[in-house]
Amino acid sequence: MNEAQHMQQLPPATDDEATRYRLGLARLAQVDGLAGERVIAALQEVAPALARYTITFPFGEVYQDEVLTLKEREIATVAALAALGNATPQLKVHLHGALNVGCSREEVIAILTQMAVYAGFPAAINGVLAAKEVFAERDAG
Amino acid sequence: MNEAQHMQQLPPATDDEATRYRLGLARLAQVDGLAGERVIAALQEVAPALARYTITFPFGEVYQDEVLTLKEREIATVAALAALGNATPQLKVHLHGALNVGCSREEVIAILTQMAVYAGFPAAINGVLAAKEVFAERDAG
Amino acid sequence: MNEAQHMQQLPPATDDEATRYRLGLARLAQVDGLAGERVIAALQEVAPALARYTITFPFGEVYQDEVLTLKEREIATVAALAALGNATPQLKVHLHGALNVGCSREEVIAILTQMAVYAGFPAAINGVLAAKEVFAERDAG
Amino acid sequence: MNEAQHMQQLPPATDDEATRYRLGLARLAQVDGLAGERVIAALQEVAPALARYTITFPFGEVYQDEVLTLKEREIATVAALAALGNATPQLKVHLHGALNVGCSREEVIAILTQMAVYAGFPAAINGVLAAKEVFAERDAG
Amino acid sequence: MNEAQHMQQLPPATDDEATRYRLGLARLAQVDGLAGERVIAALQEVAPALARYTITFPFGEVYQDEVLTLKEREIATVAALAALGNATPQLKVHLHGALNVGCSREEVIAILTQMAVYAGFPAAINGVLAAKEVFAERDAG
Amino acid sequence: MNEAQHMQQLPPATDDEATRYRLGLARLAQVDGLAGERVIAALQEVAPALARYTITFPFGEVYQDEVLTLKEREIATVAALAALGNATPQLKVHLHGALNVGCSREEVIAILTQMAVYAGFPAAINGVLAAKEVFAERDAG
Repeated sequence: MNEAQHMQQLPPATDDEATRYRLGLARLAQVDGLAGERVIAALQEVAPALARYTITFPFGEVYQDEVLTLKEREIATVAALAALGNATPQLKVHLHGALNVGCSREEVIAILTQMAVYAGFPAAINGVLAAKEVFAERDAG
Repeated sequence: MNEAQHMQQLPPATDDEATRYRLGLARLAQVDGLAGERVIAALQEVAPALARYTITFPFGEVYQDEVLTLKEREIATVAALAALGNATPQLKVHLHGALNVGCSREEVIAILTQMAVYAGFPAAINGVLAAKEVFAERDAG
Repeated sequence: MNEAQHMQQLPPATDDEATRYRLGLARLAQVDGLAGERVIAALQEVAPALARYTITFPFGEVYQDEVLTLKEREIATVAALAALGNATPQLKVHLHGALNVGCSREEVIAILTQMAVYAGFPAAINGVLAAKEVFAERDAG
Repeated sequence: MNEAQHMQQLPPATDDEATRYRLGLARLAQVDGLAGERVIAALQEVAPALARYTITFPFGEVYQDEVLTLKEREIATVAALAALGNATPQLKVHLHGALNVGCSREEVIAILTQMAVYAGFPAAINGVLAAKEVFAERDAG
Repeated sequence: MNEAQHMQQLPPATDDEATRYRLGLARLAQVDGLAGERVIAALQEVAPALARYTITFPFGEVYQDEVLTLKEREIATVAALAALGNATPQLKVHLHGALNVGCSREEVIAILTQMAVYAGFPAAINGVLAAKEVFAERDAG
Repeated sequence: MNEAQHMQQLPPATDDEATRYRLGLARLAQVDGLAGERVIAALQEVAPALARYTITFPFGEVYQDEVLTLKEREIATVAALAALGNATPQLKVHLHGALNVGCSREEVIAILTQMAVYAGFPAAINGVLAAKEVFAERDAG
């Protein structure tokens, strides 16, 4: 496949950098709220490119696609992060995210419990303990 | 917490082994269809306990809980298996599962694409290539 | 393979829910002791199904099978959790478990050291540091 | 941190979609050559968004940054993929990539051998066996 | 801690390279048999240092320590490799190893089944399918 | 391949245990500095064999090979540990190591940022946050 063939399949180049950034920032705020903003702020000074990519790629591109609802996206993300088991801070951000976009606490717990089957009981248990902290943060907040 | 305290919280012991097995087998057939049955058959002779557990625990217990729809459960499972990236046969079984319980092909691809963000591009790409095989099997079937 | 064929291979349905729960709780106490009970207590309120499954499946079913000794089971579990490297709390519970069912401290350290070969030096080193904490807890206890 | 503050830190919005796509395609060809193009072609029909992202994000953005040489980037990528151990097709693409941008075969083998320390002997051995296939492909090609 | 302090704790320098190599080769043959020798042969030409390290470090050092029996070591290795799930060739080598040093087939299956608890059902199922192949190789051999 | 054939390929047995230990200790000090020494000290009492292996194998053997520069080795190690995402203490040691052997802070951040592509954004973000701590330690030191 040559470049010309690829370019024909290209979507119209309307989404320049600034647009993706603006859309991504709005989606990040909608999904992850304050927890997401804190991550960006923590990255900004030391790794500005990664801070920008985090806004423009996941939220400015992937999460703009409306084939899945935001609730379905957060079910997928919570499941994946709990299964991987090595990214607790991000799991907590997306547990907030799942609750922000319409998951109930019971649904969140059911997703994490299901991970006992696919990633083992430690993954499920550590996911539930992270959720417990998130629930407490929201009750305190 | 002592045993007596635990036992008070016990649900009524109506689900004996045979009931869980029967319910699990039905749920497995509903979700994973022929692909699921083949896994059980492959395990049966060499690891009969694991074959039985696969029916009674994931499908006879976890998937009986109706807090999540089966579509939501399969979104979570496909996301987790694609993110882990080390269980392609099971990912293919659950890609069939997701399509069996109401996900469209576009939705399945969107879940896998989203894994580029949380588990990296190789996980997403290998997930999509597995989905391509599953789609071809279904078109051929 | 149809349901009828499966059902013929079914073990007698003597282990109802309450039996598995009772057996599982005893085995959990035998292996993991206080550390195991704390995990169940932490899960109980927020994820009661997962708390129950943790008793009835791993300890009420898998650990009831006497093909392996409890010492052999804990060698396997400590090795697996150290190799995965993403479940330190569970590794610590099962380091207690290994010592509770007859492993010496030297044997535990040898298992963790061996993981340098199969999962890399970081996995082995972090496993040993977790063991060091467990040894200190037991010396203090 | 509010949107206005972020936007002030925004780089000039010169890199629109088409530019990133064009730059990414050139970089992909430079690094991964034919092996990279085959991946894009395989994704194109079933997952067009992922095919596009693979060009625009890793190669159109990350690999455009010249803080690291391409050789250094491929050392990092080969090390990471060998350590993860669950993405052999991508490892092979990037073993070609490393050789394309200036690594010798001895250097590639040294990177993979070093992974025995950080990810265990199986990761290193499987990496070397993948390299052996890549070397044979290049000798045959 | 300075170098002098370390050197005081040094074991007597009796195990030179050639001794470790000779002891390692014997231990490798004892545990992994023909399957282990094939791995070394496959590495020898392309990665001679890794081939040598595989003999001198795991088998010439770690497996020389007699705190654990060889059966206990293979229980640990099979558990770890099945849990990691990304090193099927090495898992098969060590399933042969476990059987060579005294594990029964039932014990091997019990270890793999137990991994359903700690690493998820896919890890256990794929481990059992690998064992099935190993059993067939031995029956054919 | 029989033992005799292997032995012919054996390098001259000049590197006895004491030599490897001495060379390894010097290399460890050169790369990881104080952070590396602290790891050894922490292991010494509880797991003396692992403490010794950490010096003699990674640093006394693997890092003695001069096919790669120390800077290239540390690029590989930082990439691998960030991608694995389950060994933060070792990642921090080797972030110090990378800076000690000639990587700039910008280069280190670029390696970690690149891991967003191969291991996902959480791996990259957690790597950058670890680097931020390492930078602060060095500024404070």
